[in-house]
Amino acid sequence: MIKQDIVKIIPLGGLGEIGCNMTIFEYQDKILIVDVGFKMPEESMPGIDYVIPNSSYLKGKEKNVVGIVFTHGHYDHIGAVPYIISKIWRRDLPIYASPLTKGIIIKRQLEFSKLPKLNIDEVRNGSIVKLKPFTIEFFSQNHNIPDNLGLIINTPLGNIVHTSDFKFDPAPVNDLPTDFKKLESIGNRKVLLLMSDSTGAEEEGHSLSEKDIFQNLEKIFQQANGRIIAATFSSLINRIQQMVTLAEKYKRKVIVEGRSMKTNIEISRQLGYFKIKKGTLIGKKNMRDFPDSKIIVLCTGAQGESSAALMRIVNREDKTIRLQKGDSMVLSSSVIPGNERSVQNLKDNILRQGAKVFHYKMMDIHAGGHAQKEELEKMIRIMKPKFFIPIHGQYSMLFSHAQIARETGILEKNIVVAENGQIVDLDPQRIFVEAKTVISNHIMVDGLGVGDVGEVVLRDRKMLAEDGMFVIVAVIDRKTGQVKGSPDIISRGFVYLRESKILLGETRKRVVGIINRTTGSEGAANMTYVKDEIRNKIGEFLFLKTQRRPMVLPVIIEV
Amino acid sequence: MIKQDIVKIIPLGGLGEIGCNMTIFEYQDKILIVDVGFKMPEESMPGIDYVIPNSSYLKGKEKNVVGIVFTHGHYDHIGAVPYIISKIWRRDLPIYASPLTKGIIIKRQLEFSKLPKLNIDEVRNGSIVKLKPFTIEFFSQNHNIPDNLGLIINTPLGNIVHTSDFKFDPAPVNDLPTDFKKLESIGNRKVLLLMSDSTGAEEEGHSLSEKDIFQNLEKIFQQANGRIIAATFSSLINRIQQMVTLAEKYKRKVIVEGRSMKTNIEISRQLGYFKIKKGTLIGKKNMRDFPDSKIIVLCTGAQGESSAALMRIVNREDKTIRLQKGDSMVLSSSVIPGNERSVQNLKDNILRQGAKVFHYKMMDIHAGGHAQKEELEKMIRIMKPKFFIPIHGQYSMLFSHAQIARETGILEKNIVVAENGQIVDLDPQRIFVEAKTVISNHIMVDGLGVGDVGEVVLRDRKMLAEDGMFVIVAVIDRKTGQVKGSPDIISRGFVYLRESKILLGETRKRVVGIINRTTGSEGAANMTYVKDEIRNKIGEFLFLKTQRRPMVLPVIIEV
Repeated sequence: MIKQDIVKIIPLGGLGEIGCNMTIFEYQDKILIVDVGFKMPEESMPGIDYVIPNSSYLKGKEKNVVGIVFTHGHYDHIGAVPYIISKIWRRDLPIYASPLTKGIIIKRQLEFSKLPKLNIDEVRNGSIVKLKPFTIEFFSQNHNIPDNLGLIINTPLGNIVHTSDFKFDPAPVNDLPTDFKKLESIGNRKVLLLMSDSTGAEEEGHSLSEKDIFQNLEKIFQQANGRIIAATFSSLINRIQQMVTLAEKYKRKVIVEGRSMKTNIEISRQLGYFKIKKGTLIGKKNMRDFPDSKIIVLCTGAQGESSAALMRIVNREDKTIRLQKGDSMVLSSSVIPGNERSVQNLKDNILRQGAKVFHYKMMDIHAGGHAQKEELEKMIRIMKPKFFIPIHGQYSMLFSHAQIARETGILEKNIVVAENGQIVDLDPQRIFVEAKTVISNHIMVDGLGVGDVGEVVLRDRKMLAEDGMFVIVAVIDRKTGQVKGSPDIISRGFVYLRESKILLGETRKRVVGIINRTTGSEGAANMTYVKDEIRNKIGEFLFLKTQRRPMVLPVIIEV
Repeated sequence: MIKQDIVKIIPLGGLGEIGCNMTIFEYQDKILIVDVGFKMPEESMPGIDYVIPNSSYLKGKEKNVVGIVFTHGHYDHIGAVPYIISKIWRRDLPIYASPLTKGIIIKRQLEFSKLPKLNIDEVRNGSIVKLKPFTIEFFSQNHNIPDNLGLIINTPLGNIVHTSDFKFDPAPVNDLPTDFKKLESIGNRKVLLLMSDSTGAEEEGHSLSEKDIFQNLEKIFQQANGRIIAATFSSLINRIQQMVTLAEKYKRKVIVEGRSMKTNIEISRQLGYFKIKKGTLIGKKNMRDFPDSKIIVLCTGAQGESSAALMRIVNREDKTIRLQKGDSMVLSSSVIPGNERSVQNLKDNILRQGAKVFHYKMMDIHAGGHAQKEELEKMIRIMKPKFFIPIHGQYSMLFSHAQIARETGILEKNIVVAENGQIVDLDPQRIFVEAKTVISNHIMVDGLGVGDVGEVVLRDRKMLAEDGMFVIVAVIDRKTGQVKGSPDIISRGFVYLRESKILLGETRKRVVGIINRTTGSEGAANMTYVKDEIRNKIGEFLFLKTQRRPMVLPVIIEV
């Protein structure tokens, strides 16, 4: 068989969604993996901890993996490593990441026992790595975490540029401004395919510079007479840095609340990506040693997460830090779709306690990390690719990004809006989506279980949440087929049992009636039928009485 | 005892929330009720259908109720009538509403059997009604449903103006523009207290006029070559009217999908609030008699509601109306907090099928029905009240509205940001919140149950949704105290049982061990202890093995 002279690009996650970023590049059986991210579950997945990409495409091809490269240290790009790495790991598997990304991956790996210790080689702006048949060059890209790298994937058929998450920032934090000269030199090297971040593709104009954010945050520092309590994502290292820089400028001591934020600050600081003076950080217990006007609390929980540090403070569960009049509360993060109500409740509860609230809708104290329409167009014009695939984002974002590409003059047939699991064939002449797809349904992680919660379990959870459950335990005399004593009923989430004695009494009577009518003297043979009868008849009866449909589960014991 | 010369204002719902609007006005034991609305449940209330105000304050005071007046026909102002009316109803209870509001209340009442037929008197702009000691004057207010009335509540101590939901619109649909002369004349009659709608109090500037919306919608009609499928709330009668007017202008036939939308059009049309020509409406089955360019489908489901008409069309479950290339889909409603993900998924699925999407973030094809900062300020300046209470809205909206009032010059001590259940005392000299509160925790409606689902049942539902349940049924020999046979396990929503045989086997073994160890030969005495042991030990064991915490429910049967 002649090997096909094409590069296959197979997104296993990140297309048509936010998160779970993981892409396969394959040339004549050799496989390069870019990013291994996870995402948080949707509301329709109760009890699920994370969602990870399905890596079964790699089964049997483990030896063909020439390496894994990571673009940056956010969990939607590295979070599934502990779950997926052991399936393809071998002692000499090359893994590349920037120093900060490496630090975060290794730290996360430590949370899981029994996993292999990863050997990750450091790369940085300008690094070139050979993973035959691919050569990967790394280049700096601005985002909201330091040490973010775009990729030039040199294949035997041409150059593929993968932007990573990015935005153009003329004045970033702890980072150099976007180097357009460098980007242009990449664009001049003939880019066959551009794969570019679509998260901001529905937003008009240009993303805010971190400098603007800094200036607005500074206004809050200038006005605040009391404490400042600032909440953001623990992964927004750059925003946290801004707060610390301002704290030092305005002589406030910094208290950090929330384990993940502490960890991220620690890692970044050790690696030199976070600047904080000695003495700036103080422990919570020392808060009272300083006047309120000299304190800032940095914490997680700007999304209204019920278990986060901010929620404890606002709900008065934190014994040391109590919200008080005069506090200025800064919510410096956008609201993730689905969290709007929690954030609204959070805001209301802060205001009720007399504190001030500053949030990103009132002034520009938060910027996303993603390029918006103007920047995306500029990136395409700089790279001048022949082919274009929008990546990272909901379908509507990919769609909008494709429109932008069209407007820059890229031919319709050269733009592919792909979906997870599709196989995109690329050669110097054309780009093409195969009819065949690979398995790409995501895997749910719940506690120690990876993939063991499927549709059946989820459906049951949702049913249980709606109207609860109703277990009926009846003991039958094997000889007579008649019920012994009164059936037991165990019900939760349906009605308040103490106030439903009449309903339960009637139900018991009906259960006895159904059993005594349907069992013969040899009960055993008909037990399935008896159970079905109870399930249906009692289900109907309860619905008639309550208009609710609890899960009815009959248990029949023969003695 | 000398009767106090104060008016008491007691909000039972609508403050610190969106929905459940219901307010009590009380003067020397005489009670006037304004609005009786409901709200939809929050995500933290699985299985709940509606939330309604708690009317227990009225218990024992039924005879003191001098009347109920309604401002408009939206469910957040009238939806709890069927649940609350029977508690205070008497044959001669005066109820007042505008004709359309009356039509909607009566229609809703019909959905409930066994409820008294309501006798509602019609009022309109300029009507004056005496409900001693109160006299109520009604005045037109623009909103997004016709026949919306503000109230001047004349009390022995002065005039209270209640704005209802409102916005100022110079060019509304099927309605006269805001009559500022009339408003000014009200303002000149000395307003003691203004109670004004706060829903838009965090939005800058002025709300859009329906005329602007109309012009933008018209652009879509001018461009569309294929069908138009337009989704909005069924309660946005004015928006639906705009679509129909445009359909007639552009010679499109109208198909209406969704029961609630059909009903609302029908009621409004009968009462003369909805203009539609004969022959404009066609049945779904006649759709194919006309070219696509001559069809518009109006439907519910712009929020991504799983059971709505739009969802069936987009998911290809509707057999007649199938989404196709060339369709233009118009989502003309804002996104209610909490629905963002559903709406995103909806948008993605429409785009995947090649149809165009127009939504309110792309162009102004939706306006809320609520006054924004500029209008709110203007209303306060026109009314020139001595006292001010912001009503209708989340706490942050009330807070923002109070700020607006302060900026117009109302004294800080004359502004009350009240909460549900508080008693606001008003006399010509001062306004004051009593320390005492009335019961105001809302009541959950689930099926036929009103108030029977409380914290316990909800907590159980949430637990069941997280990790499911695990019922263990063991039969014990009464004589020996030992387990007979193997315990039964019924589990749902925890793990997929077929793939967990080893876990279940181990669990059974442990259950037998626990029972045999803890029961003596007289088992009965220790049954509570045995059950606790099973619950705890098996709970721990399952957590150790899975890191999940299903609800463990032991059932022990002695034979």
